[in-house]
Amino acid sequence: MNKKSDTTRQHILQIGYQLALTKGFVRVGLTELLRSANVPKGSFYYYFASKEKFGEALIDYYFQRYLQKIDDMLCTATDTYYQRLINYFTYLTEVENGMCNANRCLVVKLSAEVADLSEAMRLALRQGTDKVISAIADCIAAGQQQGSIRAGDSRLLAEHLHHLWIGASLLNKLYLNQLGLQDNLLITKTLLKP
Amino acid sequence: MNKKSDTTRQHILQIGYQLALTKGFVRVGLTELLRSANVPKGSFYYYFASKEKFGEALIDYYFQRYLQKIDDMLCTATDTYYQRLINYFTYLTEVENGMCNANRCLVVKLSAEVADLSEAMRLALRQGTDKVISAIADCIAAGQQQGSIRAGDSRLLAEHLHHLWIGASLLNKLYLNQLGLQDNLLITKTLLKP
Repeated sequence: MNKKSDTTRQHILQIGYQLALTKGFVRVGLTELLRSANVPKGSFYYYFASKEKFGEALIDYYFQRYLQKIDDMLCTATDTYYQRLINYFTYLTEVENGMCNANRCLVVKLSAEVADLSEAMRLALRQGTDKVISAIADCIAAGQQQGSIRAGDSRLLAEHLHHLWIGASLLNKLYLNQLGLQDNLLITKTLLKP
Repeated sequence: MNKKSDTTRQHILQIGYQLALTKGFVRVGLTELLRSANVPKGSFYYYFASKEKFGEALIDYYFQRYLQKIDDMLCTATDTYYQRLINYFTYLTEVENGMCNANRCLVVKLSAEVADLSEAMRLALRQGTDKVISAIADCIAAGQQQGSIRAGDSRLLAEHLHHLWIGASLLNKLYLNQLGLQDNLLITKTLLKP
Protein backbone atom coordinates (compact mmCIF):
# COMPACT_ATOMS: atom_id res chain seq x y z
CA MET A 1 0.00 0.00 0.00
CA ASN A 2 1.47 3.39 -0.98
CA LYS A 3 1.71 6.30 1.42
CA LYS A 4 -1.47 8.06 0.29
CA SER A 5 -3.47 4.80 0.53
CA ASP A 6 -2.07 4.18 3.98
CA THR A 7 -3.05 7.69 5.12
CA THR A 8 -6.58 7.17 3.75
CA ARG A 9 -6.83 3.78 5.49
CA GLN A 10 -5.78 5.39 8.80
CA HIS A 11 -8.32 8.16 8.24
CA ILE A 12 -11.12 5.61 7.65
CA LEU A 13 -10.11 3.82 10.87
CA GLN A 14 -10.12 7.10 12.83
CA ILE A 15 -13.63 7.96 11.56
CA GLY A 16 -14.72 4.34 12.14
CA TYR A 17 -13.52 4.55 15.72
CA GLN A 18 -15.55 7.72 16.34
CA LEU A 19 -18.67 6.10 14.84
CA ALA A 20 -18.17 2.80 16.71
CA LEU A 21 -17.92 4.65 20.04
CA THR A 22 -21.59 5.57 19.87
CA LYS A 23 -23.07 3.11 17.38
CA GLY A 24 -21.14 -0.07 18.19
CA PHE A 25 -20.07 -2.30 15.29
CA VAL A 26 -23.17 -3.74 13.62
CA ARG A 27 -24.89 -0.37 13.29
CA VAL A 28 -21.96 1.32 11.52
CA GLY A 29 -22.91 1.17 7.84
CA LEU A 30 -20.20 1.25 5.18
CA THR A 31 -21.98 4.02 3.24
CA GLU A 32 -22.13 6.21 6.36
CA LEU A 33 -18.52 5.41 7.23
CA LEU A 34 -17.16 6.37 3.81
CA ARG A 35 -19.36 9.46 3.57
CA SER A 36 -18.17 10.61 7.03
CA ALA A 37 -14.56 9.91 6.02
CA ASN A 38 -15.11 11.73 2.70
CA VAL A 39 -13.79 8.73 0.77
CA PRO A 40 -15.44 7.66 -2.54
CA LYS A 41 -18.27 5.20 -1.99
CA GLY A 42 -17.33 1.75 -3.16
CA SER A 43 -13.63 2.03 -2.30
CA PHE A 44 -14.04 0.26 1.08
CA TYR A 45 -12.91 -3.13 -0.26
CA TYR A 46 -9.72 -1.58 -1.61
CA TYR A 47 -8.71 -1.00 2.02
CA PHE A 48 -10.40 -3.89 3.84
CA ALA A 49 -11.25 -7.40 2.61
CA SER A 50 -14.52 -7.48 4.57
CA LYS A 51 -16.40 -5.62 7.29
CA GLU A 52 -15.02 -8.12 9.79
CA LYS A 53 -11.44 -7.39 8.63
CA PHE A 54 -12.25 -3.70 9.07
CA GLY A 55 -13.46 -4.45 12.62
CA GLU A 56 -10.24 -6.31 13.40
CA ALA A 57 -8.15 -3.45 11.97
CA LEU A 58 -10.23 -0.97 14.00
CA ILE A 59 -9.43 -2.81 17.24
CA ASP A 60 -5.71 -3.04 16.36
CA TYR A 61 -5.67 0.67 15.49
CA TYR A 62 -7.35 1.51 18.79
CA PHE A 63 -4.93 -0.57 20.89
CA GLN A 64 -1.87 0.72 19.05
CA ARG A 65 -2.73 4.23 20.17
CA TYR A 66 -4.02 3.22 23.60
CA LEU A 67 -0.91 1.19 24.46
CA GLN A 68 1.24 4.13 23.36
CA LYS A 69 -0.72 6.34 25.79
CA ILE A 70 -0.22 3.76 28.57
CA ASP A 71 3.50 3.54 27.75
CA ASP A 72 3.81 7.33 28.01
CA MET A 73 1.91 7.46 31.31
CA LEU A 74 3.27 4.35 33.04
CA CYS A 75 6.78 3.78 31.60
CA THR A 76 8.36 7.00 30.35
CA ALA A 77 6.84 9.36 32.97
CA THR A 78 9.03 10.54 35.88
CA ASP A 79 6.65 10.38 38.89
CA THR A 80 6.70 7.47 41.37
CA TYR A 81 5.03 4.34 39.99
CA TYR A 82 2.17 4.85 42.44
CA GLN A 83 1.61 8.37 41.11
CA ARG A 84 1.84 7.20 37.49
CA LEU A 85 -0.98 4.71 38.06
CA ILE A 86 -3.07 7.34 39.84
CA ASN A 87 -2.46 9.75 36.94
CA TYR A 88 -3.56 7.06 34.48
CA PHE A 89 -6.77 6.22 36.31
CA THR A 90 -7.49 9.93 36.92
CA TYR A 91 -7.14 10.43 33.16
CA LEU A 92 -9.93 7.85 32.66
CA THR A 93 -12.29 9.93 34.82
CA GLU A 94 -11.59 13.15 32.92
CA VAL A 95 -14.08 14.62 30.47
CA GLU A 96 -12.80 15.90 27.11
CA ASN A 97 -15.18 17.33 24.48
CA GLY A 98 -18.22 16.19 26.47
CA MET A 99 -17.16 12.54 26.84
CA CYS A 100 -15.11 11.01 29.64
CA ASN A 101 -12.05 9.02 28.63
CA ALA A 102 -13.39 5.82 30.24
CA ASN A 103 -16.23 6.09 27.75
CA ARG A 104 -13.80 6.11 24.82
CA CYS A 105 -12.80 2.51 25.57
CA LEU A 106 -13.50 0.21 22.62
CA VAL A 107 -13.25 -2.91 24.83
CA VAL A 108 -16.17 -1.64 26.92
CA LYS A 109 -18.16 -0.61 23.85
CA LEU A 110 -17.60 -3.65 21.63
CA SER A 111 -16.79 -6.75 23.73
CA ALA A 112 -20.34 -7.87 24.51
CA GLU A 113 -21.54 -7.02 21.02
CA VAL A 114 -18.85 -8.66 18.91
CA ALA A 115 -17.50 -11.56 21.03
CA ASP A 116 -20.36 -13.81 19.87
CA LEU A 117 -20.27 -12.39 16.33
CA SER A 118 -16.63 -12.54 15.21
CA GLU A 119 -13.86 -14.80 16.47
CA ALA A 120 -11.21 -12.55 14.88
CA MET A 121 -12.53 -9.45 16.67
CA ARG A 122 -12.86 -11.32 19.96
CA LEU A 123 -9.20 -12.38 19.75
CA ALA A 124 -8.04 -8.87 18.81
CA LEU A 125 -9.88 -7.44 21.84
CA ARG A 126 -8.47 -10.15 24.09
CA GLN A 127 -4.90 -9.67 22.87
CA GLY A 128 -5.06 -5.91 23.47
CA THR A 129 -6.61 -6.44 26.90
CA ASP A 130 -3.79 -8.84 27.85
CA LYS A 131 -1.25 -6.14 27.02
CA VAL A 132 -3.08 -3.49 29.07
CA ILE A 133 -3.24 -5.77 32.13
CA SER A 134 0.46 -6.67 31.72
CA ALA A 135 1.45 -3.00 31.52
CA ILE A 136 -0.45 -2.27 34.75
CA ALA A 137 1.08 -5.35 36.45
CA ASP A 138 4.61 -4.29 35.41
CA CYS A 139 4.02 -0.80 36.80
CA ILE A 140 2.71 -2.25 40.08
CA ALA A 141 5.73 -4.60 40.38
CA ALA A 142 8.12 -1.68 39.76
CA GLY A 143 6.26 0.40 42.37
CA GLN A 144 6.51 -2.44 44.88
CA GLN A 145 10.29 -2.60 44.35
CA GLN A 146 10.41 1.18 44.74
CA GLY A 147 8.27 1.00 47.90
CA SER A 148 5.57 3.35 46.53
CA ILE A 149 2.97 0.56 46.09
CA ARG A 150 1.67 -2.02 48.59
CA ALA A 151 3.32 -5.47 48.47
CA GLY A 152 1.38 -8.45 47.09
CA ASP A 153 0.68 -10.39 43.89
CA SER A 154 1.19 -7.69 41.23
CA ARG A 155 -0.66 -9.64 38.54
CA LEU A 156 -3.73 -10.21 40.74
CA LEU A 157 -3.78 -6.57 41.81
CA ALA A 158 -3.53 -5.47 38.16
CA GLU A 159 -6.45 -7.71 37.27
CA HIS A 160 -8.40 -6.40 40.27
CA LEU A 161 -7.91 -2.79 39.14
CA HIS A 162 -8.62 -3.63 35.52
CA HIS A 163 -11.92 -5.44 36.28
CA LEU A 164 -12.89 -2.56 38.57
CA TRP A 165 -12.37 0.06 35.87
CA ILE A 166 -13.90 -1.95 33.03
CA GLY A 167 -16.99 -2.51 35.19
CA ALA A 168 -17.35 1.15 36.18
CA SER A 169 -16.75 2.26 32.59
CA LEU A 170 -19.55 0.02 31.34
CA LEU A 171 -21.93 1.28 34.05
CA ASN A 172 -20.93 4.86 33.21
CA LYS A 173 -22.94 4.36 30.02
CA LEU A 174 -26.05 3.75 32.16
CA TYR A 175 -25.46 6.43 34.80
CA LEU A 176 -24.07 9.23 32.60
CA ASN A 177 -22.31 10.76 35.61
CA GLN A 178 -18.82 10.52 37.06
CA LEU A 179 -19.77 9.19 40.52
CA GLY A 180 -18.84 5.54 39.90
CA LEU A 181 -15.51 6.52 38.35
CA GLN A 182 -14.75 8.92 41.22
CA ASP A 183 -15.49 6.14 43.72
CA ASN A 184 -13.16 3.87 41.73
CA LEU A 185 -10.39 6.42 42.13
CA LEU A 186 -10.83 6.40 45.93
CA ILE A 187 -10.83 2.58 45.95
CA THR A 188 -7.75 2.46 43.68
CA LYS A 189 -5.77 4.74 46.01
CA THR A 190 -6.65 2.53 48.99
CA LEU A 191 -5.64 -0.63 47.11
CA LEU A 192 -2.29 0.75 45.93
CA LYS A 193 -1.11 2.67 49.00
CA PRO A 194 1.66 0.85 50.94
CA MET B 1 -54.59 -8.68 29.25
CA ASN B 2 -56.18 -12.07 29.94
CA LYS B 3 -54.31 -14.98 31.49
CA LYS B 4 -53.47 -16.74 28.23
CA SER B 5 -52.18 -13.51 26.69
CA ASP B 6 -50.08 -12.85 29.76
CA THR B 7 -48.57 -16.35 29.60
CA THR B 8 -47.74 -15.86 25.91
CA ARG B 9 -46.18 -12.47 26.65
CA GLN B 10 -43.99 -14.02 29.36
CA HIS B 11 -43.04 -16.80 26.96
CA ILE B 12 -41.98 -14.29 24.29
CA LEU B 13 -39.89 -12.47 26.90
CA GLN B 14 -38.22 -15.72 28.00
CA ILE B 15 -37.32 -16.61 24.39
CA GLY B 16 -36.26 -13.00 23.76
CA TYR B 17 -33.95 -13.17 26.77
CA GLN B 18 -32.28 -16.33 25.43
CA LEU B 19 -31.80 -14.75 22.00
CA ALA B 20 -30.55 -11.43 23.41
CA LEU B 21 -27.91 -13.24 25.50
CA THR B 22 -26.01 -14.19 22.36
CA LYS B 23 -27.26 -11.77 19.71
CA GLY B 24 -27.68 -8.57 21.72
CA PHE B 25 -30.69 -6.35 21.01
CA VAL B 26 -30.38 -4.93 17.48
CA ARG B 27 -29.67 -8.31 15.88
CA VAL B 28 -32.77 -10.00 17.38
CA GLY B 29 -35.31 -9.87 14.54
CA LEU B 30 -39.03 -9.98 15.32
CA THR B 31 -39.63 -12.78 12.80
CA GLU B 32 -36.95 -14.94 14.39
CA LEU B 33 -38.23 -14.12 17.88
CA LEU B 34 -41.83 -15.11 17.13
CA ARG B 35 -40.79 -18.20 15.19
CA SER B 36 -38.57 -19.33 18.10
CA ALA B 37 -41.42 -18.63 20.54
CA ASN B 38 -43.87 -20.46 18.26
CA VAL B 39 -46.22 -17.48 18.27
CA PRO B 40 -48.06 -16.43 15.06
CA LYS B 41 -46.05 -13.99 12.99
CA GLY B 42 -47.58 -10.54 13.08
CA SER B 43 -48.89 -10.81 16.64
CA PHE B 44 -45.87 -9.01 18.15
CA TYR B 45 -47.63 -5.64 18.32
CA TYR B 46 -50.49 -7.17 20.25
CA TYR B 47 -48.05 -7.72 23.11
CA PHE B 48 -45.60 -4.83 22.70
CA ALA B 49 -46.19 -1.34 21.28
CA SER B 50 -42.72 -1.25 19.64
CA LYS B 51 -39.41 -3.08 19.59
CA GLU B 52 -38.11 -0.54 22.11
CA LYS B 53 -41.05 -1.28 24.44
CA PHE B 54 -40.24 -4.97 24.05
CA GLY B 55 -36.61 -4.19 25.01
CA GLU B 56 -37.75 -2.31 28.09
CA ALA B 57 -40.08 -5.19 29.07
CA LEU B 58 -37.23 -7.65 28.49
CA ILE B 59 -34.98 -5.79 30.93
CA ASP B 60 -37.79 -5.54 33.53
CA TYR B 61 -38.53 -9.27 33.13
CA TYR B 62 -34.83 -10.08 33.57
CA PHE B 63 -34.44 -7.97 36.72
CA GLN B 64 -37.66 -9.25 38.27
CA ARG B 65 -36.23 -12.77 38.22
CA TYR B 66 -32.67 -11.72 39.03
CA LEU B 67 -33.70 -9.67 42.05
CA GLN B 68 -35.80 -12.61 43.27
CA LYS B 69 -32.68 -14.80 43.02
CA ILE B 70 -30.65 -12.19 44.93
CA ASP B 71 -33.38 -11.96 47.57
CA ASP B 72 -33.33 -15.75 48.01
CA MET B 73 -29.54 -15.88 48.25
CA LEU B 74 -28.87 -12.75 50.32
CA CYS B 75 -32.02 -12.18 52.42
CA THR B 76 -33.93 -15.39 53.09
CA ALA B 77 -30.88 -17.74 53.29
CA THR B 78 -29.67 -18.86 56.72
CA ASP B 79 -25.84 -18.70 56.42
CA THR B 80 -23.82 -15.80 57.81
CA TYR B 81 -24.06 -12.68 55.64
CA TYR B 82 -20.43 -13.20 54.63
CA GLN B 83 -21.22 -16.72 53.44
CA ARG B 84 -24.37 -15.58 51.62
CA LEU B 85 -22.32 -13.10 49.56
CA ILE B 86 -19.67 -15.73 48.85
CA ASN B 87 -22.41 -18.14 47.75
CA TYR B 88 -23.87 -15.48 45.46
CA PHE B 89 -20.54 -14.65 43.81
CA THR B 90 -19.63 -18.34 43.57
CA TYR B 91 -22.95 -18.87 41.79
CA LEU B 92 -21.84 -16.30 39.16
CA THR B 93 -18.72 -18.38 38.42
CA GLU B 94 -20.67 -21.61 37.98
CA VAL B 95 -21.32 -23.10 34.55
CA GLU B 96 -24.82 -24.40 33.78
CA ASN B 97 -25.68 -25.86 30.35
CA GLY B 98 -22.36 -24.73 28.91
CA MET B 99 -22.63 -21.08 29.96
CA CYS B 100 -21.45 -19.51 33.21
CA ASN B 101 -24.01 -17.52 35.17
CA ALA B 102 -21.94 -14.32 34.92
CA ASN B 103 -22.42 -14.63 31.18
CA ARG B 104 -26.21 -14.65 31.58
CA CYS B 105 -26.17 -11.04 32.78
CA LEU B 106 -28.23 -8.77 30.55
CA VAL B 107 -26.55 -5.64 31.96
CA VAL B 108 -23.19 -6.90 30.70
CA LYS B 109 -24.64 -7.97 27.36
CA LEU B 110 -26.81 -4.94 26.57
CA SER B 111 -25.52 -1.84 28.38
CA ALA B 112 -22.91 -0.72 25.84
CA GLU B 113 -25.14 -1.60 22.92
CA VAL B 114 -28.40 0.04 23.96
CA ALA B 115 -27.39 2.95 26.23
CA ASP B 116 -26.80 5.17 23.19
CA LEU B 117 -29.78 3.74 21.33
CA SER B 118 -32.72 3.90 23.74
CA GLU B 119 -33.21 6.19 26.71
CA ALA B 120 -36.00 3.93 28.07
CA MET B 121 -33.78 0.84 27.98
CA ARG B 122 -30.86 2.73 29.53
CA LEU B 123 -33.07 3.83 32.43
CA ALA B 124 -34.47 0.31 32.91
CA LEU B 125 -30.92 -1.11 33.07
CA ARG B 126 -29.85 1.63 35.46
CA GLN B 127 -32.84 1.17 37.76
CA GLY B 128 -32.24 -2.59 38.01
CA THR B 129 -28.52 -2.05 38.61
CA ASP B 130 -29.31 0.38 41.45
CA LYS B 131 -31.39 -2.31 43.14
CA VAL B 132 -28.67 -4.96 42.78
CA ILE B 133 -26.04 -2.65 44.33
CA SER B 134 -28.44 -1.74 47.16
CA ALA B 135 -29.15 -5.42 47.91
CA ILE B 136 -25.39 -6.14 48.12
CA ALA B 137 -24.84 -3.04 50.30
CA ASP B 138 -27.66 -4.09 52.67
CA CYS B 139 -26.16 -7.57 53.00
CA ILE B 140 -22.71 -6.09 53.70
CA ALA B 141 -24.15 -3.74 56.36
CA ALA B 142 -25.98 -6.66 58.03
CA GLY B 143 -22.76 -8.72 57.95
CA GLN B 144 -20.82 -5.88 59.52
CA GLN B 145 -23.36 -5.70 62.37
CA GLN B 146 -23.10 -9.46 62.71
CA GLY B 147 -19.29 -9.29 62.68
CA SER B 148 -18.91 -11.64 59.69
CA ILE B 149 -17.85 -8.87 57.26
CA ARG B 150 -15.06 -6.29 57.55
CA ALA B 151 -16.09 -2.83 58.84
CA GLY B 152 -16.16 0.11 56.41
CA ASP B 153 -18.44 2.05 54.07
CA SER B 154 -20.93 -0.66 53.03
CA ARG B 155 -22.15 1.25 49.99
CA LEU B 156 -18.62 1.84 48.66
CA LEU B 157 -17.69 -1.80 49.23
CA ALA B 158 -20.87 -2.94 47.42
CA GLU B 159 -20.00 -0.70 44.48
CA HIS B 160 -16.41 -1.99 44.54
CA LEU B 161 -17.61 -5.62 44.34
CA HIS B 162 -20.23 -4.81 41.72
CA HIS B 163 -17.77 -3.01 39.40
CA LEU B 164 -15.32 -5.89 39.89
CA TRP B 165 -17.85 -8.53 38.84
CA ILE B 166 -19.37 -6.54 35.98
CA GLY B 167 -15.85 -5.97 34.61
CA ALA B 168 -14.81 -9.63 34.88
CA SER B 169 -18.14 -10.76 33.39
CA LEU B 170 -17.62 -8.54 30.36
CA LEU B 171 -14.05 -9.80 29.89
CA ASN B 172 -15.29 -13.39 30.28
CA LYS B 173 -16.82 -12.91 26.83
CA LEU B 174 -13.33 -12.30 25.43
CA TYR B 175 -11.44 -14.96 27.40
CA LEU B 176 -14.02 -17.78 27.35
CA ASN B 177 -12.50 -19.25 30.50
CA GLN B 178 -13.22 -18.96 34.22
CA LEU B 179 -9.83 -17.63 35.35
CA GLY B 180 -10.89 -13.99 35.74
CA LEU B 181 -14.02 -14.96 37.66
CA GLN B 182 -12.04 -17.34 39.90
CA ASP B 183 -9.56 -14.54 40.66
CA ASN B 184 -12.51 -12.28 41.46
CA LEU B 185 -13.69 -14.81 44.02
CA LEU B 186 -10.30 -14.75 45.76
CA ILE B 187 -10.30 -10.93 45.73
CA THR B 188 -13.90 -10.83 47.03
CA LYS B 189 -13.05 -13.07 50.00
CA THR B 190 -10.09 -10.86 50.89
CA LEU B 191 -12.22 -7.71 50.67
CA LEU B 192 -15.07 -9.09 52.81
CA LYS B 193 -13.16 -10.98 55.52
CA PRO B 194 -13.09 -9.13 58.86
